[in-house]
Amino acid sequence: MGIFKAKGVVYKPVDDVDLGPHSDEFYLRANVKGLKEQEVKLVEDDLSPSDKIQKAMECIQCSESIQENSELSFHRWTVLDYSRAYISGEITPLMVAERFIAAVHESSEPALHMSFFIDYNVGDILRQATESTQRYKQGEPLSPLDGVPIAIKDEIDCMPYPTTGGTKWLQKVRHCADDACCVKRLRLCGAILVGKTNMHELGAGTSGINPHYGVPRNPYDPNKVSGGSSSGSAAVVSAGLCPVALGVDGGGSVRMPAALCGVVGLKPTFGRVPHSGYDLIYVSLYFPILPGYFMMLDSTLGQNLEWFNDCTDDIRVCCSHALDQLHKHYGWETMDVTIPEIEVMRLAHYSTIGSECSNSIACHLENMNVAEIGLDARVALSVYGSFSSREYLNAQKIRNRQMQFHKKIFAMADVIVTPTTGVTAYPIFDDALKTGELDYINGAALVRYQISGNFLGLPAVTIPIGYDKVGLPIGLQFIGKPWSEATLIHIAFAMQAISDSKKPQIFYDLLKKD
Amino acid sequence: MGIFKAKGVVYKPVDDVDLGPHSDEFYLRANVKGLKEQEVKLVEDDLSPSDKIQKAMECIQCSESIQENSELSFHRWTVLDYSRAYISGEITPLMVAERFIAAVHESSEPALHMSFFIDYNVGDILRQATESTQRYKQGEPLSPLDGVPIAIKDEIDCMPYPTTGGTKWLQKVRHCADDACCVKRLRLCGAILVGKTNMHELGAGTSGINPHYGVPRNPYDPNKVSGGSSSGSAAVVSAGLCPVALGVDGGGSVRMPAALCGVVGLKPTFGRVPHSGYDLIYVSLYFPILPGYFMMLDSTLGQNLEWFNDCTDDIRVCCSHALDQLHKHYGWETMDVTIPEIEVMRLAHYSTIGSECSNSIACHLENMNVAEIGLDARVALSVYGSFSSREYLNAQKIRNRQMQFHKKIFAMADVIVTPTTGVTAYPIFDDALKTGELDYINGAALVRYQISGNFLGLPAVTIPIGYDKVGLPIGLQFIGKPWSEATLIHIAFAMQAISDSKKPQIFYDLLKKD
Repeated sequence: MGIFKAKGVVYKPVDDVDLGPHSDEFYLRANVKGLKEQEVKLVEDDLSPSDKIQKAMECIQCSESIQENSELSFHRWTVLDYSRAYISGEITPLMVAERFIAAVHESSEPALHMSFFIDYNVGDILRQATESTQRYKQGEPLSPLDGVPIAIKDEIDCMPYPTTGGTKWLQKVRHCADDACCVKRLRLCGAILVGKTNMHELGAGTSGINPHYGVPRNPYDPNKVSGGSSSGSAAVVSAGLCPVALGVDGGGSVRMPAALCGVVGLKPTFGRVPHSGYDLIYVSLYFPILPGYFMMLDSTLGQNLEWFNDCTDDIRVCCSHALDQLHKHYGWETMDVTIPEIEVMRLAHYSTIGSECSNSIACHLENMNVAEIGLDARVALSVYGSFSSREYLNAQKIRNRQMQFHKKIFAMADVIVTPTTGVTAYPIFDDALKTGELDYINGAALVRYQISGNFLGLPAVTIPIGYDKVGLPIGLQFIGKPWSEATLIHIAFAMQAISDSKKPQIFYDLLKKD
Repeated sequence: MGIFKAKGVVYKPVDDVDLGPHSDEFYLRANVKGLKEQEVKLVEDDLSPSDKIQKAMECIQCSESIQENSELSFHRWTVLDYSRAYISGEITPLMVAERFIAAVHESSEPALHMSFFIDYNVGDILRQATESTQRYKQGEPLSPLDGVPIAIKDEIDCMPYPTTGGTKWLQKVRHCADDACCVKRLRLCGAILVGKTNMHELGAGTSGINPHYGVPRNPYDPNKVSGGSSSGSAAVVSAGLCPVALGVDGGGSVRMPAALCGVVGLKPTFGRVPHSGYDLIYVSLYFPILPGYFMMLDSTLGQNLEWFNDCTDDIRVCCSHALDQLHKHYGWETMDVTIPEIEVMRLAHYSTIGSECSNSIACHLENMNVAEIGLDARVALSVYGSFSSREYLNAQKIRNRQMQFHKKIFAMADVIVTPTTGVTAYPIFDDALKTGELDYINGAALVRYQISGNFLGLPAVTIPIGYDKVGLPIGLQFIGKPWSEATLIHIAFAMQAISDSKKPQIFYDLLKKD
């Protein structure tokens, strides 16, 4: 019996804020009130990546409920759906790969111009799919991820592609010679790595608009942004091209586009995913999760009301309604908490990540042609390079201070709940296509609730919970204690089970029966 | 049987470079080849400071050898000598305090003008001494430190004194309201805290020359510097005023003056001593240690020959001779090791400590009168404030790189051996008395061997091993693996046992029999 399987039991998130060293992957853990230790499944550290995935997936046994939950208007296929379809033989990885290639092709044509990918290699995709299909034929898939298409943000190393970071120059000065650790593990599980997704240049903005590779358009409305910086990864999951995509979240860069594109976005605890193979330091996941039904009593959601309400009317109403639903269905209580110095934290985080970005690319900048950098990235880089060491050290003191504040909050509340963003997807203006865009009003509204996840290394998840008046997705964010990913995934399941879901304008069903 | 007691056994330093959390104080530990675990004495964490001292002192049982070792021409009294004299009743803490006060008074008169102390309070010293004397009378001393005079560098908080950091302004903007943790522990052991020693202004130089409080002169030649920044602490131990003094070593600031003044200086592993109560981050000890006799076979001393030899002829000859003696007496082998990028490390350390100093005093500098800062400190502060966050982060990468280099070296050698400084004490010029001094030639030679101790947090000890042609002390430095203080103290005992010692020009014998 796994932690994702039991129904009707009382779940309670981990109590201790544990900052010590932990297993870096798929270490699923929760204190479950009223359950004995053996009913919480721990995935051993010394298993191979594919065995870990296998163990983790065995915990998820409730996909039959998809059919039961007839009230759900729409859902995306999950990893488990792919795995079952392959095992049943209804469909093969090669068929999915061919549909995927056709769909990406169609989405790239001038009529749509979705600009999801910076690069994808048809031959490489078909080769992986053929090998996977062969494994299923022999009854020997490597794991439930075998044959599942997974896209990788183009700042994470993934062979055989160069790593552009959304630029026209990084790939010339920095050779990609190997998969990043997280990609290597997916490959060992048999996943089909389908290409490198578009992103905001250098991850240095929140709109996702890229003057070099186009704007990854929002599948719910192709005239709107998908948010950034991991714009392409959120958009491909939203459009049904992949059930999972990797992004990088250094300042909300996974959660913001996930919210704007109506998918789940998970930013793990700092240190959970190894950092080798790319310069920046966060890997996160986009995925549509499985509907199910959970009783999670006695959970307390910390809500800083003034902060929570600093968003559009539609978002405020929708997010408040979601909290009411959680109370109605699961009895979860919301309590007032105060998070001091939120704006100070934002500035401290900005100077920290700006300094770190500047430091990590400084060696390349000396020898490059500035004309190759987009205008908005030029502005960002020049701000990033302006911080003094004294300011950087001050920011680290502010970080310690905020950790203390949050420790106190987490002594009272199990998670902190906020809207994911202060606005929904906003229009793409024509002139932004060529020059990029600096929109500090919308940018500030997008980033408003992101910072503690990154600056304090806390795990956070955004869950699509509804739509604004014009049908654009709204996300609700839960910020957890360090190493409480299992709790956040629980909450995501519980939340999705009571949320309505709507099909985007651009959507591809890769598992459809012909 | 304690680790400091056994004679004729084979000692071997700890093998593993352990970077985990450790007891912060008096945690004496060594792997002793050929000895069973129970023969290594561990001082439990949960003891009080005075019980810890008691346990540690019980390990040191060889002071009878002072009389036996008639070849030693001179030695300073140790903590154990004080403790025994008090217990025997030959002398009382009050008598010592009175002699101490008279000696400091004499040393401060125009004829000598030694400038050892920035502040000492006669009433406070006599009160502590009276209370200690009373405890001995009742047969209830708090620990072997009871009644022992200990001086504190004036950048460490110690009641009832303001903390000047060698400046004329710090005490006005930063109120000292409590003892620093390390001082609190000494006080709990009954030590007499005899005042605040002179230092280089803000610790921002290596000569120890202070334009506000005078130059702590070298007891071996009052026309020479005592080195810095913890000049006063080294000088008072050298002159016999205290058997122990606290300094702070952020870039060799304990070891350099210890070497120039002919005393032992120990810089513990980063994190061993808690940092509360002062802004900078290293506390170290000066002490004259006990002669004894040790067989330490199979120890391997790593020597980077080109670096080792980058010092004056006298120092090179003297330090090489010391290695020969260690080989002859204990069979210790010297092996060639290469430490790459030493100069890069020095620059990285300088920008790190400069940035941290600038950050920690920035809040005070805004509201102060620049005329109150000495000229050399002004230059230092303006360099410290000039580093960018990018440079600071680069320095941290260099730190990681050097840690890897040193890990490899410590896989081969038990300790790294160097001269402590590249020059011996140099002349004090008259015009430096008023303005302070920036001597980059001598400064660079002093600091040459210091950096890895601070930048990598490694423990290091300097031991007086001889004298140059004009009779000025020469120190030999041993740099150990993290948490290998017990090994270094062993080495210090072993080295002192075979070194000759000379009385300084200025010396006070506080335990002399009338």
